[in-house]
Amino acid sequence: MCRWLAYSGTPILIDHVLFRPQNSLIDQSLSARRAFTPTNADGFGLGWYGRQETPGLFRSIRPAWNDLNLRDLSSHVESSLFLAHVRAASASPVQETNCHPFRHGRWLFVHNGEIREIGRIRRELLFAVAPEYFESIAGTTDSEIMFHLMLSLGLDRDPLGAAARMAGLVESVADRAKIENPLWMTLGFTDGVRVYGVRYTREGEAPSLCHTREPKDLRGVCPALALAAPHCRILASEPLGDLPKAWHFIPNCSAVVIEGERVDAYPFEPDPPPA
Amino acid sequence: MCRWLAYSGTPILIDHVLFRPQNSLIDQSLSARRAFTPTNADGFGLGWYGRQETPGLFRSIRPAWNDLNLRDLSSHVESSLFLAHVRAASASPVQETNCHPFRHGRWLFVHNGEIREIGRIRRELLFAVAPEYFESIAGTTDSEIMFHLMLSLGLDRDPLGAAARMAGLVESVADRAKIENPLWMTLGFTDGVRVYGVRYTREGEAPSLCHTREPKDLRGVCPALALAAPHCRILASEPLGDLPKAWHFIPNCSAVVIEGERVDAYPFEPDPPPA
Amino acid sequence: MCRWLAYSGTPILIDHVLFRPQNSLIDQSLSARRAFTPTNADGFGLGWYGRQETPGLFRSIRPAWNDLNLRDLSSHVESSLFLAHVRAASASPVQETNCHPFRHGRWLFVHNGEIREIGRIRRELLFAVAPEYFESIAGTTDSEIMFHLMLSLGLDRDPLGAAARMAGLVESVADRAKIENPLWMTLGFTDGVRVYGVRYTREGEAPSLCHTREPKDLRGVCPALALAAPHCRILASEPLGDLPKAWHFIPNCSAVVIEGERVDAYPFEPDPPPA
Amino acid sequence: MCRWLAYSGTPILIDHVLFRPQNSLIDQSLSARRAFTPTNADGFGLGWYGRQETPGLFRSIRPAWNDLNLRDLSSHVESSLFLAHVRAASASPVQETNCHPFRHGRWLFVHNGEIREIGRIRRELLFAVAPEYFESIAGTTDSEIMFHLMLSLGLDRDPLGAAARMAGLVESVADRAKIENPLWMTLGFTDGVRVYGVRYTREGEAPSLCHTREPKDLRGVCPALALAAPHCRILASEPLGDLPKAWHFIPNCSAVVIEGERVDAYPFEPDPPPA
Repeated sequence: MCRWLAYSGTPILIDHVLFRPQNSLIDQSLSARRAFTPTNADGFGLGWYGRQETPGLFRSIRPAWNDLNLRDLSSHVESSLFLAHVRAASASPVQETNCHPFRHGRWLFVHNGEIREIGRIRRELLFAVAPEYFESIAGTTDSEIMFHLMLSLGLDRDPLGAAARMAGLVESVADRAKIENPLWMTLGFTDGVRVYGVRYTREGEAPSLCHTREPKDLRGVCPALALAAPHCRILASEPLGDLPKAWHFIPNCSAVVIEGERVDAYPFEPDPPPA
Repeated sequence: MCRWLAYSGTPILIDHVLFRPQNSLIDQSLSARRAFTPTNADGFGLGWYGRQETPGLFRSIRPAWNDLNLRDLSSHVESSLFLAHVRAASASPVQETNCHPFRHGRWLFVHNGEIREIGRIRRELLFAVAPEYFESIAGTTDSEIMFHLMLSLGLDRDPLGAAARMAGLVESVADRAKIENPLWMTLGFTDGVRVYGVRYTREGEAPSLCHTREPKDLRGVCPALALAAPHCRILASEPLGDLPKAWHFIPNCSAVVIEGERVDAYPFEPDPPPA
Repeated sequence: MCRWLAYSGTPILIDHVLFRPQNSLIDQSLSARRAFTPTNADGFGLGWYGRQETPGLFRSIRPAWNDLNLRDLSSHVESSLFLAHVRAASASPVQETNCHPFRHGRWLFVHNGEIREIGRIRRELLFAVAPEYFESIAGTTDSEIMFHLMLSLGLDRDPLGAAARMAGLVESVADRAKIENPLWMTLGFTDGVRVYGVRYTREGEAPSLCHTREPKDLRGVCPALALAAPHCRILASEPLGDLPKAWHFIPNCSAVVIEGERVDAYPFEPDPPPA
Repeated sequence: MCRWLAYSGTPILIDHVLFRPQNSLIDQSLSARRAFTPTNADGFGLGWYGRQETPGLFRSIRPAWNDLNLRDLSSHVESSLFLAHVRAASASPVQETNCHPFRHGRWLFVHNGEIREIGRIRRELLFAVAPEYFESIAGTTDSEIMFHLMLSLGLDRDPLGAAARMAGLVESVADRAKIENPLWMTLGFTDGVRVYGVRYTREGEAPSLCHTREPKDLRGVCPALALAAPHCRILASEPLGDLPKAWHFIPNCSAVVIEGERVDAYPFEPDPPPA
């Protein structure tokens, strides 16, 4: 399990969202409330959009709570859209190239969950990545493969469709290998304009994913944040603050698209490759 | 809070003690059972005695559970006496020089607990270290200062006496600064022959410290270990394995001296400096 | 030896100064031209001023050339005043708290050179730091002690005077210990408004220190930089680019004060403590 | 470029070979004499054989010269066969999984040099690795792919043959991609009994590789080492010590097999796959 969040809205010091709220993502790195593995200390990452064409990226293998550089960066950089992740490694080594977010051009991508028994199908999934994206795979996680499959399957022109085709491809490969219920995930990805969130598993319930109901509800979550960011939306693995009612929990098999403070909800269903 | 253990007895692959038991020290780095702060992921250290004059030392700022080098070292190095520690940093930075054990000549030293409000008396304590030991202080923890005070106060010729004089000195400095109940600690130290354990706080109860009752009781803790190490003793912050009855909990204000598998118990009382 | 640089002037992406010029500071981390020890790979640091009250700080023990986070931060953060340093460790451990710049309030400080035989006088120098600054010493370098002595000796109200009193104090302590020619150094420090550079040794020549002659001369150093930063000044251990004539080498026993693109030069002489 | 060495012979403290000689591998990490890129500071690794079935492995991304753990491990562990490597990264990220040696079962493998324009053929080479070895690829270097190709091509039953088939395969894939002279390399690999060294490029000269002529010649290289290890052989990228005459330089397109102190030389020629 991992934990992640995305912020979209009024430009704000990252620190306001990442460190200051109760049960902040940094607190969750030490002790998440709604995760099977409460400790998410196998590295972290922060990607933020500023005035450059591509987002900035800061990733480290240290536990987020003891990295002074993350603290300093967060309290000196402002952004109107950023994506952060704290990792609990399962199979893959703890190294910066396995830390989320992953970046390609303007895109950032985070993942929580797993492709079950990935070791049995990794080679086939990797082979399904388009050759032009193959060389930009720098690590060894299932997450990075999922992202590069989405790039291969049209992320630029149809983001949610690419996620659906990726999920369909993974399930069809896994089904052939007789892996039960292979996908159990939330995804977060963004091109710097819109933030996409997906929650999906075929059977049962995927890991939790929620977003702030109304910008004004932020007052209950973190008064200082509400003041600093009157127009914003936070999408997160679990609520920040101590007011769960301020958060809308996204149902399984669904997706959201956030632009500025606006949220649109959609169903999400894997789109398998033609037989 | 931190967690530590010492092993003394039959030469054994370190891995047998450090990784294989249930609730091993490595498990405790992720989630200790008897600590206020269950996560001890701000670095770790292992000191072991072999055929060289001084012990070997391996320290790292990574969480112990995700450091592959520790795993490899432990499963390739045998030792008849070693000391390991997983750290939950309080005030001092997470850096190798702040990881325990600390080493000086043949001595290794670990500490769990704290000198309360150390910031108000650190300078005075530091200048109480004898000049000949001052330059070997490489980090910034209260623990390392305690060790160097003990070196200054006769650790070589009278180990438990040096610990008592150190505790007496710290309390007298803290009392002048009006710090309440300044010491709350367990200490472990060894010259490669004997292992010394101290549990002390003036009021209330110090952090837990226990040792295996009888070598044969190890069978309940970890059958493979009992087989591999018929003559041994483990001293630890909390029990390994799932058989608390196999462990003797050391009372507050007391000390033990372990040589091979033999354990002797003593009262422990600070020895304040002459007025 | 180490290498450092300070930039003051038109707000600019840090990357323009830190990475893009020929013989950039990052190149110097791998192979400096004018240093006895050409490799400066024992960590690095970057301090930058933005819209917050205190400067941001990013320090790491990795070689500057292989740290992807430094590259990303530099190409996404703009600043009108920043200070960067690449380290070749002499005696002190390689750890973040020993990486320059050091920070206190609005001040940043870097150092190149050494206090000779520091081990013989470290304790006395440390003791001379005012108690109110003692607790903010987080590492173990001579450089950080020098900075905290300057803070103790009036850095806020008289920056160059504080440097002179620090140098006078170090020399007087070292002279009593019969250490020959104890100081061999360049210093860089800034409050976010002015950058102070000092080059000093009592006998012989201190490490090199130079600044760009005229902003227009930057065209020869790095045309893109000159374009991006029409009003700026760079102070550095050795010239960037391939046009040494574009740089003014500061004589031994002298100091400069840079504000925006303006440079004023002063003699520098230690100011010993009253007998 | 990288630098590596293998030791085979009398059990010895690793430190004797790794740190103590002049121009030791650790010195070469800071400044190699016979390499295009003199600095090899992008991580290092040490693999050693002891009493366990598989070799121990210690790898780190720090420069070898400033890693205190390597120093301690080397001065506390004895071995009669070990392999060490210091890395100058070319394309692949600096992370432990990209540090040599690579390990599989009893095998260790190091590489110096490159597959030219690897980015154009990495995907094809990766998919030529046998599926049963695919999942044990943990990093992203060309070196690790070469090792896994050798495992796929019969390393266990015919070590030099597997190297020849790997080289033949790489050249045939590269030739189809019109990459000129694709292989420029030395290889070192061992099963814990024999050490294999290969030096090969099709045109021109591969990186240097040499071994000590006679155990007695070691006296000129490092008298203490000769005394400690009367029966040994060192295979290295460049001579240790200051007596080049004590070393035999292996010609291009050749291989050596070392068992204990015995050396046998062979020609080496790629063995391309059947058309």
